[in-house]
Amino acid sequence: MANPFAEILDLILLVPEGDEEAVDAVRIRDRQLTKPPGSLGRLEELVEWLARWQGKAEPTLEDPMVAIFAANHGVTDQGVSAYPREVTAQMVRNFTDGGAAISRICAQHELNLRVFELALEMPTGDITREPAMDDRMCAATIAYGMEAIAGKPDCLAIGEMGIGNTTVAAAVFAALHGGSGADWVGRGTGVDDAGLARKAGAVDSALALHREALGDPLAVLARLGGREIAAMLGALVAARHQKIPVIIDGFVATAAAAVAHAVNPAAIAHCIFGHRSAESAHGPALERLGAAPLLDLGMRLGEGSGAALAMVLAKTALNLHRSMATFHSAGVSGRG
Amino acid sequence: MANPFAEILDLILLVPEGDEEAVDAVRIRDRQLTKPPGSLGRLEELVEWLARWQGKAEPTLEDPMVAIFAANHGVTDQGVSAYPREVTAQMVRNFTDGGAAISRICAQHELNLRVFELALEMPTGDITREPAMDDRMCAATIAYGMEAIAGKPDCLAIGEMGIGNTTVAAAVFAALHGGSGADWVGRGTGVDDAGLARKAGAVDSALALHREALGDPLAVLARLGGREIAAMLGALVAARHQKIPVIIDGFVATAAAAVAHAVNPAAIAHCIFGHRSAESAHGPALERLGAAPLLDLGMRLGEGSGAALAMVLAKTALNLHRSMATFHSAGVSGRG
Repeated sequence: MANPFAEILDLILLVPEGDEEAVDAVRIRDRQLTKPPGSLGRLEELVEWLARWQGKAEPTLEDPMVAIFAANHGVTDQGVSAYPREVTAQMVRNFTDGGAAISRICAQHELNLRVFELALEMPTGDITREPAMDDRMCAATIAYGMEAIAGKPDCLAIGEMGIGNTTVAAAVFAALHGGSGADWVGRGTGVDDAGLARKAGAVDSALALHREALGDPLAVLARLGGREIAAMLGALVAARHQKIPVIIDGFVATAAAAVAHAVNPAAIAHCIFGHRSAESAHGPALERLGAAPLLDLGMRLGEGSGAALAMVLAKTALNLHRSMATFHSAGVSGRG
Repeated sequence: MANPFAEILDLILLVPEGDEEAVDAVRIRDRQLTKPPGSLGRLEELVEWLARWQGKAEPTLEDPMVAIFAANHGVTDQGVSAYPREVTAQMVRNFTDGGAAISRICAQHELNLRVFELALEMPTGDITREPAMDDRMCAATIAYGMEAIAGKPDCLAIGEMGIGNTTVAAAVFAALHGGSGADWVGRGTGVDDAGLARKAGAVDSALALHREALGDPLAVLARLGGREIAAMLGALVAARHQKIPVIIDGFVATAAAAVAHAVNPAAIAHCIFGHRSAESAHGPALERLGAAPLLDLGMRLGEGSGAALAMVLAKTALNLHRSMATFHSAGVSGRG
């Protein structure tokens, strides 16, 4: 039987390079702007990043998309969340009705919000008892994520919603990077100490149950992950091949990037990380990827909220790059 | 002869308290919003900060002002900047013509930019040879800063422009907090190693020359500071008495806050710090004030640019607080 992951593996392993000529063009213009070279710090880097991965000497942010992938998880049977499972579907309605945090951020800052529901009525398997998904389901969900961004935004922010998903993300990190449940779980939406212990125990049980079957990163994703993580993986990989720079949101979205990174570290070079979550293991997870998030605001909401705020910075950075006066046009003297 | 600083000293020493009832009202509403409590981290704190210092249970950001104070400095005769002194006036024109970074940020995010020129044609004294200002001039400039914000914005971001002003700010920090020039100078707009050594030497010379006259923080300001630092001090103190929360920009603006703090630490409780500058001594300067800046983007431009980006976050935070759905209105289940 054919390996259902054959196509996605090829796409992760054979990724296009960035466009350094486009970056050079950005740097030439940057040096003409009325400011000391380098004085806008990471805002300058954001414009270079857009140019490199869009392959455009004059990068754009005319069609920025915030994509949220929502899924449910059998592991919630283990009492790992402070909220009941039905909140996932309720929050999806809240996203589209415009009442959620991400809805308000996107409306205020003119970002296109797209919400993708992943069979909410069919939670994945409880990872303490069975695989989250079989390989075929996992591959199909990755493919769904790849299709989801086919509208071709010029920049993509990736986030998620799913009661229970900090537990499955912790399991994915533990399987990829080592350590036990206690190393990777956190309070998520706000569990108490007993809930935290249940999360760590659930991860440890899942690691023990599936130990023999965690030989490669995509197997880890299928056994321990969730549909939103699989779809985010598909989205971020497809984005690379479609010249769409990606902003990864928080702890759970980072798990999708970690799977890609474990297959091929170069596969996430087009991704930046929007925000360091207050979820305690996000910092260590980012370190494993060598990632320095743009923002550190103590948020832990998911929904793409941290990535969307980073997108606001990217829009601001690009606006500065495109519209600031030059030393010549403004009649400002250069260095003495 | 009357102490010219008598009025400002009274205003720094006798500051109104924050409104904790307004904060309580914000917290009550916050708990109803469709998100786990605390999950918006510092965005939630920003709304509480606005409520506390505006004294409003329903805080506003309808008239946010970014105020830039610009001045020139005699110490530029010592070769402490990478740019010639005339750039200060040229950049002031660039601010008002709309070509500068701060102009573009304010236009994009609907912040009101106001630029205050402080006798650019009359630089302050070269602090390595004479006082920057006499006490009367310093007090008058503080008063000017107090008047500058009389338009009553509902939030104030404070920034500056002034070739040479990272040198005088370094001198102020050294006099207030101890240490030598080398501890407090940085590369500013981008001086080379020789320029950095000249900056440290200039600060050390100024500290030695004025040592006997640095007995109180306002004397430090007059002897070693600059007009923009004096005006920013006036603005931030007046703001406190007018119920206007303040966002302080970078290294030089922080020197104004440090003078107020040295007189009365409670006097800057209404101030937050927008951004940790890449100017190397800004981190230590913030630590002395117990301040944790919102952003850390490697910027070192001044112009109020970091404070303005923090204002964008505050606008976003307030928008979320005011417009998000509640658990009740959205039909989302609470904690299980």
